[in-house]
Amino acid sequence: MTRDPAPVQITLPPWVDEVVDWTKRYPADEDRMRLAITLARENVTRKTGGPFGAAIFAEETGELVSVGMNSVQRLTNATLHAEMMAFMMAQHAVGAYSLSAPGLPHHTLVTSCDPCAMCLGAVLWSGVQRVVCGASRDDATRLGFDEGPVFPQSYHYLEDRGITIVRRVLHLEARGVLELYRKRGGIIYNG
Amino acid sequence: MTRDPAPVQITLPPWVDEVVDWTKRYPADEDRMRLAITLARENVTRKTGGPFGAAIFAEETGELVSVGMNSVQRLTNATLHAEMMAFMMAQHAVGAYSLSAPGLPHHTLVTSCDPCAMCLGAVLWSGVQRVVCGASRDDATRLGFDEGPVFPQSYHYLEDRGITIVRRVLHLEARGVLELYRKRGGIIYNG
Repeated sequence: MTRDPAPVQITLPPWVDEVVDWTKRYPADEDRMRLAITLARENVTRKTGGPFGAAIFAEETGELVSVGMNSVQRLTNATLHAEMMAFMMAQHAVGAYSLSAPGLPHHTLVTSCDPCAMCLGAVLWSGVQRVVCGASRDDATRLGFDEGPVFPQSYHYLEDRGITIVRRVLHLEARGVLELYRKRGGIIYNG
Repeated sequence: MTRDPAPVQITLPPWVDEVVDWTKRYPADEDRMRLAITLARENVTRKTGGPFGAAIFAEETGELVSVGMNSVQRLTNATLHAEMMAFMMAQHAVGAYSLSAPGLPHHTLVTSCDPCAMCLGAVLWSGVQRVVCGASRDDATRLGFDEGPVFPQSYHYLEDRGITIVRRVLHLEARGVLELYRKRGGIIYNG
């Protein structure tokens, strides 16, 4: 009766502070998406994970709350997609399990690619009010990544609960990181 | 450029080793479900979270690999449903991000309630080959918990990829924990 396992530690890779300007404001969706794409690209070129990046912002002020990047291989944890990292880090930062807890500003998730089924489900529990996506599910699927059971009605389900979803922001730039990953022979770990 | 956040720590609640016999074998689905239900019930009575428990077993031997229980409030993290905890802890324990990595035995997730959209998506990435559920989506919905965008074709999607799903094992006992939670006035944190 004594095998209580060691805690699971979730950390950002060491290069984050070289790449992320935490003090900058990100007013427009394009500014925000550029950061998500940068995180995805740096994750590929620095070989710390798959070609996916995400960040969470206070909607009104454009303040950066958290960042995430695919960390499945780095942290030996299949749940650590970019969006999941960003949710956990944001909730940790604001000290609430919902980013729409009383007293908090509205929050937006910006992700370099349409969320998979897990991450889209997590959007609902995260408390973000807006989701902005870059590359499409088709782009990821062409690369060999399975996006899981996401259907048109999955998006409607979230929209019916007051979540705004904007897709294909800086689409070509976002797709470019997926192509870069393929060219470098990156592992399709969920293939 | 220096706001790299503190790591997120994911721990089990302190009562786990009082409740879980790590050395026991759990040969049948009912044995396994009894553990998942116990974890859910203890989580309620010890006030460490929502009425949901899960565990992962090596399918052939019945060895216990990991446990999880809803830890959303305790750890201020909306992603920490019971199943997500169990996946992370199992991957940490076996040292692989997929529980179907080469050299590993087949693994089964046993959960006291049908998984929500996030957890069902995570099933696909986790590497488990079987999923065994107790209480139903309807039971959780009646309690006020939203289960997210899960549709009949979501289950078919997983089955088409070789995952076996068994539902309503010890259904009444599993549902009983949800009723206990309601009677005690537990918070419906995703309501």
